[in-house]
Amino acid sequence: MEEVKLLKTWSTPFGLRVVQALKLKGIGYEAVDEDLSNKSALLLQYNPVYKKVPVLVHNGNPISESLVILEYIDETWKHNPILPEDPFERARERFWAKFNDEKLLPTIWAVFTKEGKEREEAMAASVENLKFVEEELKGKKFFGGEKVGLADLVLGWLANLIGVFEEVTGLKIVDERYPLLLGWMKEFYEVPVIKDTWPPHDKMIIKYQAFYDKYHPA
Amino acid sequence: MEEVKLLKTWSTPFGLRVVQALKLKGIGYEAVDEDLSNKSALLLQYNPVYKKVPVLVHNGNPISESLVILEYIDETWKHNPILPEDPFERARERFWAKFNDEKLLPTIWAVFTKEGKEREEAMAASVENLKFVEEELKGKKFFGGEKVGLADLVLGWLANLIGVFEEVTGLKIVDERYPLLLGWMKEFYEVPVIKDTWPPHDKMIIKYQAFYDKYHPA
Repeated sequence: MEEVKLLKTWSTPFGLRVVQALKLKGIGYEAVDEDLSNKSALLLQYNPVYKKVPVLVHNGNPISESLVILEYIDETWKHNPILPEDPFERARERFWAKFNDEKLLPTIWAVFTKEGKEREEAMAASVENLKFVEEELKGKKFFGGEKVGLADLVLGWLANLIGVFEEVTGLKIVDERYPLLLGWMKEFYEVPVIKDTWPPHDKMIIKYQAFYDKYHPA
Repeated sequence: MEEVKLLKTWSTPFGLRVVQALKLKGIGYEAVDEDLSNKSALLLQYNPVYKKVPVLVHNGNPISESLVILEYIDETWKHNPILPEDPFERARERFWAKFNDEKLLPTIWAVFTKEGKEREEAMAASVENLKFVEEELKGKKFFGGEKVGLADLVLGWLANLIGVFEEVTGLKIVDERYPLLLGWMKEFYEVPVIKDTWPPHDKMIIKYQAFYDKYHPA
């Protein structure tokens, strides 16, 4: 009997993409929800470098950093692959995953957390980044083509968290300029298996409203 | 006859790691040295998102982002692997490669480019990051164990560029607190095949002195 344990929070995209990958593979796991204001000894032991979730613990071996975890999952449980076979297609999935984490998500997060001129700049950068993503979806159902792949899992936060950001800020971020992306968001949200993993919208609103208030004190 | 073309500069670590991976594999390629102050139409066409080098072009397919390129190289030419077979060991290599690009290199670059309090903070962060790397080398010849792997290639800039940074700034960055790292730097520098790829030290000094002068105008 193998041990699969996942240290995570319920509300952030980084843990959710790992949950979704495990679900796609049908791998059972023990969820350990961390309180980031009071990190567990286990988290500090398993991820001394970043002290961050998610951490996947497989038979005693801890793996940190969600993109690294997704590759590990795909290499360890080879059925229902999230990366295609062709090296160029694999590179494309990795490129967009990295783009999300280094460009798209940080610029949209800055729209959420910044004010004034900084927010305007973040919005302009977000538009540029969203255009690239829109372009990438041309002629495709998913970023992975006909089926969900690594890039879909990593960009998957757009399918739930963007709505939360928009509701809390009162700003429209993903609008009709991105029809393919809007279509993908709906499509991905409804994928069987994925559909059951989304955290409750009302709970998310409360959580992110609290973040927002922290970044924008009255 | 396959086309392997590499858009790069001679002086930055990101292109060099790709050159070194191709050398380890014995793959011939056409080097296209880019002038970043006047980017070529080819670079803008092949990497419209980042407009950055390196870009590997293999039979017309462009791959950007050096970590993505390294994975592509290892998957396309499978001999002399730079990633081990075991998924946990592969995760470890990827973790340290990512750590280099997201933590270690940026903090040391900040030591090079910042001044005063900001430099002090960058130095403190660099010390923390270097300690983690030192710890990781315990009981190993290379980050990859007995042979050079992905993490060695990515951290490889320490073996030449640190000396350049230290000479230009007059600051010692990797000192006797990191004996394993110092040993690895010598070992990695001298690896056959790798040894021939280092750019000339005197040319590097001139290049990085110019960077330094730009960041620290008199």
